[in-house]
Amino acid sequence: MAGETPITVVGNVVADPELRFTPSGAAVANFRIASTPRTFDRTTNEWTDGETLFLSVSVWRQQAENVAASISRGDRVIVVGSLSQRQFEKDGERRSSYEVKAEDVGPALKNATATVTKSSARSNAPQGYGQQAPQQPYGSPQGDPWAQQQPQRSYADEPPF
Amino acid sequence: MAGETPITVVGNVVADPELRFTPSGAAVANFRIASTPRTFDRTTNEWTDGETLFLSVSVWRQQAENVAASISRGDRVIVVGSLSQRQFEKDGERRSSYEVKAEDVGPALKNATATVTKSSARSNAPQGYGQQAPQQPYGSPQGDPWAQQQPQRSYADEPPF
Amino acid sequence: MAGETPITVVGNVVADPELRFTPSGAAVANFRIASTPRTFDRTTNEWTDGETLFLSVSVWRQQAENVAASISRGDRVIVVGSLSQRQFEKDGERRSSYEVKAEDVGPALKNATATVTKSSARSNAPQGYGQQAPQQPYGSPQGDPWAQQQPQRSYADEPPF
Amino acid sequence: MAGETPITVVGNVVADPELRFTPSGAAVANFRIASTPRTFDRTTNEWTDGETLFLSVSVWRQQAENVAASISRGDRVIVVGSLSQRQFEKDGERRSSYEVKAEDVGPALKNATATVTKSSARSNAPQGYGQQAPQQPYGSPQGDPWAQQQPQRSYADEPPF
Repeated sequence: MAGETPITVVGNVVADPELRFTPSGAAVANFRIASTPRTFDRTTNEWTDGETLFLSVSVWRQQAENVAASISRGDRVIVVGSLSQRQFEKDGERRSSYEVKAEDVGPALKNATATVTKSSARSNAPQGYGQQAPQQPYGSPQGDPWAQQQPQRSYADEPPF
Repeated sequence: MAGETPITVVGNVVADPELRFTPSGAAVANFRIASTPRTFDRTTNEWTDGETLFLSVSVWRQQAENVAASISRGDRVIVVGSLSQRQFEKDGERRSSYEVKAEDVGPALKNATATVTKSSARSNAPQGYGQQAPQQPYGSPQGDPWAQQQPQRSYADEPPF
Repeated sequence: MAGETPITVVGNVVADPELRFTPSGAAVANFRIASTPRTFDRTTNEWTDGETLFLSVSVWRQQAENVAASISRGDRVIVVGSLSQRQFEKDGERRSSYEVKAEDVGPALKNATATVTKSSARSNAPQGYGQQAPQQPYGSPQGDPWAQQQPQRSYADEPPF
Repeated sequence: MAGETPITVVGNVVADPELRFTPSGAAVANFRIASTPRTFDRTTNEWTDGETLFLSVSVWRQQAENVAASISRGDRVIVVGSLSQRQFEKDGERRSSYEVKAEDVGPALKNATATVTKSSARSNAPQGYGQQAPQQPYGSPQGDPWAQQQPQRSYADEPPF
């Protein structure tokens, strides 16, 4: 992909993520995030809430399952991805909806701690659902460079500053 | 603040975060992150690693403590903040270093799950260190709107789409 | 402001920007931008267009006038700002729209050159419209640090690398 | 490319861009940008400058020539690209430098207007330099989807809102 519109949204998860599987067995999680800016009012010397931004988020494959297992309603999360738009008709009227296609999702640590557990390889995918390991799922980013688990790199070559 | 340079970096934590306290008792955590892009080589039909980007990260107050308690070497993390530069002299030569001042930090769920625990109010700050609750720490963003714990908002007013 | 959602959108201007003035004389320009990502199809070895992202943009004050004087339909532009959402009712149904509140706008030089002319001070504002110099306009960012023309800085103190 | 670190920097150009050509005839322009944040001091009720962020920028091909022809010292510009790091040795010491690899560059219209001229096709490349049209230049993004001039799209299919 090239020419996408990168976006990072930090906010609260409005409802528990919904996890579904495509016919080919690929996981996708969907949730909504609410992000509220704050304005400093110099007259009252106080911060007041601005208008909340709501956005739908989709996340795929192993990460979808990890999100569903880790994130729940009310959590403050960080979503990194690209902003996309989908157009559709409703009642004969043209409409559109916006969605963040997430590349990375994680709980924000501003007001929370997290116990992190590395997930084992992708073989822990939807067993018990009668599905096979995910192939190239529909709608998912083509040629995802992260599809295979990355070996842990060592950083012995890190610069000393 | 205005006119800052926002940045989101996703990568692996090079070494465990270091947690320190300012004389006034404010927590600050520092760590380094390594982010490696990948290029698709059409000749070999394979992804190859690009040059790794290393960046220093600083995070303040309650979040500093949460990061130190949650993140360790090798974890994939998301850092959201602004890119800043500091200039100094070394051996009579002018130099500079770059740092991400983090607004939000969290573990990335691409290859991990996380058990999230809301931290209680800021009163769980550095007790036992003989310090008082953090005031306005040096070097920290002035007038931080998140300094007080936000009450949990309800989103009953969320739009139905 | 704090906690906004920063976004940069690069795309083509769908129609000429519309310039209006608030009752107090502040300029605001509105336009729409279309940004189309591209996917590389490894089968055909060709780039194909993805789904276009359309976004509304608003820009205020002197910059609104500069945009209206500089940008026209079909131009490739860069928009830097924050993503916001507005909610409204239509036919008894709750709806929302998204808008980029632009902090900075400029023509992109990928396929164009630009002759740049510094605008004189804000005194060249909407004279002839019978309005006074803009005050704090409604809907505009409060306490805009760029409201006054910045003196040109010299960078004699720039590091030598 | 995947997994890059996207960044947008808005600031003043420190010195006129330098335009060079690779042996194969590809243009590259380099310049430095200075971006200064501002902090609102609630005590004095004034904005004060924060520490300036300096960054090197590189831009390739037709856009390099357009930048060199359009941008000069002191101009406020918008740079959209990805942050990268290069490591090297100097005096036996390991060092690194950071650079923004620009995808898009343009003059900012906050305090300036611009007269935009679409550049003709890439055939106006470095003739007279005895070079051929640029091939895949070294160091440039592989498989650039924008290498060919995009036909102007019409947006008759734009949604009506």
